[in-house]
Amino acid sequence: MQIVLNSPLDMHLHLRDADMLKRVAPLSSFSFSGAIIMPNLVPPITTIEALLEYRQRILSSTCRDNFKPLMTLFFKNDYSYNFLKDAKKYIAAVKLYPSGITTNSEGGVSNMDIGGLRDTFEAMSELGIPLLVHGETNGFVMDREEEFGSVYEQFAKNFPKLKIVMEHITTKHSAELLDRYENLYATITLHHLYITLDDVAGGMLLPHLFCKPIAKRPEDRDALLKLALSAHPKVMFGSDSAPHPVDKTESCGCAAGVFTAPIALQALAMLFEKHGKLKNLQAFVSDNATYIYEYEPIKKEVVLAKAPFVVPKSYEGVVPMFAGEEISWSIKNVR
Amino acid sequence: MQIVLNSPLDMHLHLRDADMLKRVAPLSSFSFSGAIIMPNLVPPITTIEALLEYRQRILSSTCRDNFKPLMTLFFKNDYSYNFLKDAKKYIAAVKLYPSGITTNSEGGVSNMDIGGLRDTFEAMSELGIPLLVHGETNGFVMDREEEFGSVYEQFAKNFPKLKIVMEHITTKHSAELLDRYENLYATITLHHLYITLDDVAGGMLLPHLFCKPIAKRPEDRDALLKLALSAHPKVMFGSDSAPHPVDKTESCGCAAGVFTAPIALQALAMLFEKHGKLKNLQAFVSDNATYIYEYEPIKKEVVLAKAPFVVPKSYEGVVPMFAGEEISWSIKNVR
Repeated sequence: MQIVLNSPLDMHLHLRDADMLKRVAPLSSFSFSGAIIMPNLVPPITTIEALLEYRQRILSSTCRDNFKPLMTLFFKNDYSYNFLKDAKKYIAAVKLYPSGITTNSEGGVSNMDIGGLRDTFEAMSELGIPLLVHGETNGFVMDREEEFGSVYEQFAKNFPKLKIVMEHITTKHSAELLDRYENLYATITLHHLYITLDDVAGGMLLPHLFCKPIAKRPEDRDALLKLALSAHPKVMFGSDSAPHPVDKTESCGCAAGVFTAPIALQALAMLFEKHGKLKNLQAFVSDNATYIYEYEPIKKEVVLAKAPFVVPKSYEGVVPMFAGEEISWSIKNVR
Repeated sequence: MQIVLNSPLDMHLHLRDADMLKRVAPLSSFSFSGAIIMPNLVPPITTIEALLEYRQRILSSTCRDNFKPLMTLFFKNDYSYNFLKDAKKYIAAVKLYPSGITTNSEGGVSNMDIGGLRDTFEAMSELGIPLLVHGETNGFVMDREEEFGSVYEQFAKNFPKLKIVMEHITTKHSAELLDRYENLYATITLHHLYITLDDVAGGMLLPHLFCKPIAKRPEDRDALLKLALSAHPKVMFGSDSAPHPVDKTESCGCAAGVFTAPIALQALAMLFEKHGKLKNLQAFVSDNATYIYEYEPIKKEVVLAKAPFVVPKSYEGVVPMFAGEEISWSIKNVR
């Protein structure tokens, strides 16, 4: 059995910088046609100059020329209309982080009141620039995303022309918000389709499955699965693949992030086949994103075959999800 | 400011065996007068012979002769009345583990139906041997203890003369069960009075705070605090101090267990003082246990002073709670 995916897109990707960028960019650019690149470097990407330099470093690190990094700026509420108008030529979206909520988000927004955000949101609405949001409060770890729901609702109600993407949703509650507001969209990761908190901390503690937002309850995963497997038109695949060197994930105080980029398509094929929904994978990993972002992707065909693939224990020191395990689908060819 | 604790008791302690026993037994025997010793070795302690040998290894590993290991057997439903009658001379309790629920519990009970447990429970009731229970199902990690509640209720209702200790309770629900059944008691650990899941996985992932049962929600911790600080007569301090070598807690797949024995009394004093409840600490760490177990402890006075204590980063390769941090109480003298 095999399938062909046309121009798969990863709509939420961390490529990092420097040595790590050189290690991971070839892996994403091998199997994806494009990816939304997160701007949370140190310092974050907040100028066009920094963005173009980062874009160049990414392109020099990829293994093929048929991969497009879709660049994003790190949201600041002092971005003016004119700045964003210039930036629009180079960016696919702007990413908003609540301050301190995840890796390198210290310079993010500390007050979600609409007053302080209005000018920038209105400029983005007018210019048609999507707003991507890491939607968590700093509350109790299992409640953070649901607590942020009221912020999403405020944003969606007050800026009806702004496309708002709820990034890496993990709860039934977020899944329900999607249908309540026309301008809310979502990305879903691979790992949140596979795991719950049980997999992270129910047996041994598995730091390589620790991420933000943390994996939630079985009923939450079921709600995400339902959206993904049906390729709900407002959801897109976004891996949130977040590499850390092994000494940062296996030490006392592990960094958050699951590294899935090189195994994502294979594991998605396995999951969709298991549920008899292979026919919907194309929409989930590409078509929905092209409609939502109004984006014409670079052509790339990825041939996946049902054939065993033993996931490497490490990609140059970065431990992937399913490390050392056999999954039942592999990439046969990319053209 | 200083206080004197008379004969502090740790009513739930893992001393392990061999090298680890030699490392940790001196630490508990330094500051505690006695401790309930968990029987989940490999293989578990199920015979009087193994129990007496283990007791001897413990005594040879302690640093003082004023420490009494209160031995327990690993529950098996084929223990006969006569066996338990003989064993009673040497044991303080019998500990029941659901099969596979925690470290070295593979030989535990796989069916909690009362039918198969009745004979042993009746013998224990008649002989006055307390039943200690690790109360978790194999359900979703945050629900396991509450799900086990109905088992506790069945046990309590059907065996009203059996003293049942709900070990290391972590939920508001368990706290409420205490007052519902006369023959239910509980131990509470140090770490469950201090932490919630937020501390384990809300920021960085902290493997040294990973334990079973996992720390729960803020409202659960508040319920435990209320019981401990008021020295509710049916609760006892039980550290569940569970040492693992550092390579088992900081590697890919971390073992569950927080190591608190050497810092428990200092950290309890800090906590009780903070809440203005120092006067209740004696009951929580000793008196309640002596009533519940009808046990006359070896005399030992531990003088605690409000003076800074920097917790070692490691005790011979075992990382304690609060490693490297300063706590505000220290042990001044033991006599």
